[in-house]
Amino acid sequence: MRPRLVLFGDSITEQSFAPGGWGAALAEHFARQADVVLRGLSGYNTRWALKVLDRAMEGAADGGADPAAVTVFFGANDATLPDEVQAHQHVPLGEYKDNLRAICAYFKNKWPSAAIILITPPPIHEPARIRDIYGDNDPSRQPERTNEAAGTYAQACITVAKELGHPVIDIWTQMQQCPDWQTSALSDGLHFTPSGNKILFDEVLKTLESVGFSQHSLRSDLPLFHEIDPKDPLKAFEI
Amino acid sequence: MRPRLVLFGDSITEQSFAPGGWGAALAEHFARQADVVLRGLSGYNTRWALKVLDRAMEGAADGGADPAAVTVFFGANDATLPDEVQAHQHVPLGEYKDNLRAICAYFKNKWPSAAIILITPPPIHEPARIRDIYGDNDPSRQPERTNEAAGTYAQACITVAKELGHPVIDIWTQMQQCPDWQTSALSDGLHFTPSGNKILFDEVLKTLESVGFSQHSLRSDLPLFHEIDPKDPLKAFEI
Repeated sequence: MRPRLVLFGDSITEQSFAPGGWGAALAEHFARQADVVLRGLSGYNTRWALKVLDRAMEGAADGGADPAAVTVFFGANDATLPDEVQAHQHVPLGEYKDNLRAICAYFKNKWPSAAIILITPPPIHEPARIRDIYGDNDPSRQPERTNEAAGTYAQACITVAKELGHPVIDIWTQMQQCPDWQTSALSDGLHFTPSGNKILFDEVLKTLESVGFSQHSLRSDLPLFHEIDPKDPLKAFEI
Repeated sequence: MRPRLVLFGDSITEQSFAPGGWGAALAEHFARQADVVLRGLSGYNTRWALKVLDRAMEGAADGGADPAAVTVFFGANDATLPDEVQAHQHVPLGEYKDNLRAICAYFKNKWPSAAIILITPPPIHEPARIRDIYGDNDPSRQPERTNEAAGTYAQACITVAKELGHPVIDIWTQMQQCPDWQTSALSDGLHFTPSGNKILFDEVLKTLESVGFSQHSLRSDLPLFHEIDPKDPLKAFEI
């Protein structure tokens, strides 16, 4: 049975098949080895994600076999400030942690053998958020998200992952190590440029490898072209 | 049940999740509506594809429901010249047609309600093939593929599609209507640039729409962000 990777998260997951996206890059990387299943829900926080878990996973792994891994990538919307324009996306920190625990418990129960990979919210470039929301650079504006709040939620995500024994990708920290991350990795202060996508893609590959899932460890589907003998091609297809 | 699109073909399918690829663009376009399943086999012709059909489709649609559509995109390798370096990929024209008929019959039997969309081989830019194979521009070289041969196989593909009543995308003709298609649409005289991918993506969308499969006709998975009332977000999640 072909292994599956399920990507569950908010808009940064939903948009991960755009040109240069981290989801498409996974599908390309594992093209002959695994299926990548997209379950991104733009704008969602963990509270809403919890409400739709069963419906969101319809068709994600019907064949009976557990997916090899599922990425859980929420928090960017939970960390929205509670007193700014996108306040209805905000989820308090304690509830965010509880919701992450509940999402992980759901997957642990549904797919016992799947690796559950948590991803922290990314960093925020506040001036770009103001431009995105208000269409201007008025310095009296407040952004609807701050990097500090995102960092607090990132730390909470790491805490929950460690408590539950799941691998975690600290993209909040990793991305900020990139020169000019504010504009090189982020397109609008929140979503990812192709370079930002590449940072996450590399981290997901490393994490998958740490749980035994890599191009080297996986069987390739069907004879590869270079394995087919030009003098006797059909030999490769004898079972 | 979430609808599925299955992409079955050679390297132009296998590479369709690279940045700007037509497969990834389909996954992005239908992110909240359908799953795109990648089954690309680089280097394969229809003869080899027929040998592995059952194994290639493992896990492609386990849930019992037929995929909404399957693209069948072979011929670029079948049309390889029988007396040049990649001769072992060549499949005679008559056999190519028979193999396409057999592949369509297989899908018709396996997934009776799925639309079977045939795609012709793309055009060939011969000087770029010579460069790709031999690493030089020596004018005495012969390419391993010609545009004329690809056109003959494209016509055969169209004939089979019409005979069986399946929709067909004539990418050989469509692509050659693009200015400077030799280099703007093709990267190495055979595979697609992002612009070439966009041409095919648009054609696939049009063809899907012609069989009743479009963003407008499909239900979106779960409440969309703009449908969630900021004053009472949880209302959207009441079943």
